[in-house]
Amino acid sequence: MKKYSKVFKGTAFSSKSPKEVQILKDYLFCINADGMIEKTISPEEADYQILLDAYENKENFHCLAHGQYFLPGFVDLHVHAPQWAQSGNALDIPLYDWLNTYTFPLESKFADLDFAKNVYEEVVSTLLANGTTTALYFATVHKEASLLLAEICAKKGQRGLVGKVVMDDPEQNPEYYRDADTETALADTEEFILAVKELAKSTKQGVYPVVTPRFIPSCTDEALKGLGELAAKYDTHVQSHCSESDWEHGYVKERFNKNDAFALNDFGLLREKSVMAHCNFLDDDDADLFAETGTAIGHCPISNAYFANSVIPIAHLHSKSVDIGLGSDISGGFSPSLFDNARQAVMSSRMLEDGVNPKLPAEERGVPNSRITINEAFYLTTAGGGESLSLPIGRLAENYTWDVQIIDTSLTSAKLPIYDANEDLHDIFQKIMYLTRPENIREVWVQGEKVHSRN
Amino acid sequence: MKKYSKVFKGTAFSSKSPKEVQILKDYLFCINADGMIEKTISPEEADYQILLDAYENKENFHCLAHGQYFLPGFVDLHVHAPQWAQSGNALDIPLYDWLNTYTFPLESKFADLDFAKNVYEEVVSTLLANGTTTALYFATVHKEASLLLAEICAKKGQRGLVGKVVMDDPEQNPEYYRDADTETALADTEEFILAVKELAKSTKQGVYPVVTPRFIPSCTDEALKGLGELAAKYDTHVQSHCSESDWEHGYVKERFNKNDAFALNDFGLLREKSVMAHCNFLDDDDADLFAETGTAIGHCPISNAYFANSVIPIAHLHSKSVDIGLGSDISGGFSPSLFDNARQAVMSSRMLEDGVNPKLPAEERGVPNSRITINEAFYLTTAGGGESLSLPIGRLAENYTWDVQIIDTSLTSAKLPIYDANEDLHDIFQKIMYLTRPENIREVWVQGEKVHSRN
Ligand SMILES: [Zn+2]
Ligand SMILES: [Zn+2]
Repeated sequence: MKKYSKVFKGTAFSSKSPKEVQILKDYLFCINADGMIEKTISPEEADYQILLDAYENKENFHCLAHGQYFLPGFVDLHVHAPQWAQSGNALDIPLYDWLNTYTFPLESKFADLDFAKNVYEEVVSTLLANGTTTALYFATVHKEASLLLAEICAKKGQRGLVGKVVMDDPEQNPEYYRDADTETALADTEEFILAVKELAKSTKQGVYPVVTPRFIPSCTDEALKGLGELAAKYDTHVQSHCSESDWEHGYVKERFNKNDAFALNDFGLLREKSVMAHCNFLDDDDADLFAETGTAIGHCPISNAYFANSVIPIAHLHSKSVDIGLGSDISGGFSPSLFDNARQAVMSSRMLEDGVNPKLPAEERGVPNSRITINEAFYLTTAGGGESLSLPIGRLAENYTWDVQIIDTSLTSAKLPIYDANEDLHDIFQKIMYLTRPENIREVWVQGEKVHSRN
Repeated sequence: MKKYSKVFKGTAFSSKSPKEVQILKDYLFCINADGMIEKTISPEEADYQILLDAYENKENFHCLAHGQYFLPGFVDLHVHAPQWAQSGNALDIPLYDWLNTYTFPLESKFADLDFAKNVYEEVVSTLLANGTTTALYFATVHKEASLLLAEICAKKGQRGLVGKVVMDDPEQNPEYYRDADTETALADTEEFILAVKELAKSTKQGVYPVVTPRFIPSCTDEALKGLGELAAKYDTHVQSHCSESDWEHGYVKERFNKNDAFALNDFGLLREKSVMAHCNFLDDDDADLFAETGTAIGHCPISNAYFANSVIPIAHLHSKSVDIGLGSDISGGFSPSLFDNARQAVMSSRMLEDGVNPKLPAEERGVPNSRITINEAFYLTTAGGGESLSLPIGRLAENYTWDVQIIDTSLTSAKLPIYDANEDLHDIFQKIMYLTRPENIREVWVQGEKVHSRN
């Protein structure tokens, strides 16, 4: 019999398709030394009992307790790691003030590596405790602190994709917080890419450098062009913001006489491994361009309620075959939890479908067929996030990584309302998605290693 | 010196007005034997040190630890207690199916007192653990189980306002779940009122019977009239649903040729102590009638995203002097937390202001001046809830009840992102409102008694 590094037994939920959740009842998950799921075995299969007999009493066998379930680890496609220090603050003030009174002064403090270490350790731990096993991070303009964030991800066992932020235009960025000049911005980015690639060699779960222009308005043409070239040269991930708000969408149109998506593409920034945050104002041509280039959308529903002036039509964009995942957008979004964001994704889609203004007649109020289900929101946080990053993550299936969260529905201090011993597992799944709190997440595993535990 | 039953020391947040939060830094709160705040003393006052010296080493002195803060207990104006058993379920299906496939079959099971006890014990404990010290409950049609809910509130120390639900129209309600007939519905309600009034005599924090027509569509005219008379006879609270959705608002207009608000008023159901859930489709005349009669709105922002076809214009209704508080609407809303609902109230108001459809030009998309701040959402969950119920609750001020939650921002497992020892207390307040999880709520007190603790 094949030797596995670890074997897990329990009931799991995993996306079969955007609309369908597969229930893997009492499955065995066989994990190899690389932390990959080498085999999944259902109780109906012949070798189930053989394998169970062989592993049941071993130290590397993990069996879920009654009331516990496996979910795939969540994939957060948009986190401003330094902004964790201001999460929840100042969401009532205009974006301009939010940036200039709070955000830029805060981010500038990450020149101080002690301060950076303090915040970065906590944001990574907090996301893990919320079930996020992979995160796509904006750091700051500072090369050293950005590398420190990658190192902290590596050390804590989270799959971190990290970008040193580029914002080089002296007209658009405050003097106290921007790249020294375009050349330095590009040189720092290249050094950063090489340093993270070096770090990745000793990191089981992977860490990845990400080319990260903050957004078009903060960058010069030269910087955008140079970043596109670096992404191609090193085949890296790329992240930025795209068509988030009326202002931003309008700014790019004014500067380039085209939509954000096409402008980014001209600079070589829309690639298979690109993820663009928000994208509320994509038109159908933009969406086709995303689909063709393999660029994904990082949908941030909580943040969008504050800063995006609209709800992105996720159902429509899914129908156009664009890859989509979810992002917390800390701290435009206040919550470090993708459970919260999945719930908001459903609610916002319902509000887009029904509309918001009660003074309008129902038929003029909303956009029909815009709703997504909780199954689809689950897909966005898991398999959709994995596809967006072109990584084998987000599903509990063979040849995917063993990235899981163990949810306890029967915890005394946060018991989920399950009263029927034979309750339908689809109903339990919905209760988990809607009611899980961080304390229900008892363990988190990444690439076959336990990285968070409340036991 | 005056003898107090208990003295508490710490920093508290309490609403000064709908838009302003008062910070009571290092205050002393002196509680009398009735559980009322008899005196609040700031460190600047002369008797502060005298009182501190007198109580500091006594058993009835409670001093907050570093990183802990007092918030008023929250007031939940709309909870379907039996529906806790299906919280999070089936929110993707149409309202009609949600009611007939899930909700009515579930509520009918509360004829069984064992089942009822199981669910009701847990919903009351869960709300307390989420910081809700006062709740306005719909029970079911069953007189005995409804009384059991009141008894459980009494026993667990929560201030419960409980209604036996009336739904007597045989045309509108399923045979397996409705009042036997109109006469029985009214007789059961009267018996229920008397039983709860009896129970109240031995309940320190108060329990209150509530006249509760489910909503106009489920009741006959005779029942509605009789319930109005009972509310007047016993001067009880009244609760129902009003102008929630296009369908419901339209149904009442069809039946009575007037808006829901005026129809309810004709039956004597809009009174000083009335709370109507949702009210999304009130027009200005309806709102004036609410203000005149002292009727309050129980705003349920999470539930509304699923079932109300719109966002209620809270800012506008506040400007018309209508009392407004927040409700979880378990299980039309999935969350037992008013923190979650306060956050959603802010987000939904932003979405009403900005609009949702990105295809529309910005100036045609939303309803200007609709946003509310997190301060206003806090007001709704606390002082606004108290005013809605005409009870001295929801503020940390003299002659209010000592209903508080103690929030720990520095808990290791759920630390709030506070990095500056001198961080502005308004910023800390916002982080508390946006990031508190149940595990941060270390203690909950109602009417001077500790009713929940994680220590
Ligand atoms: Zn962002
Ligand atoms: Zn309701």
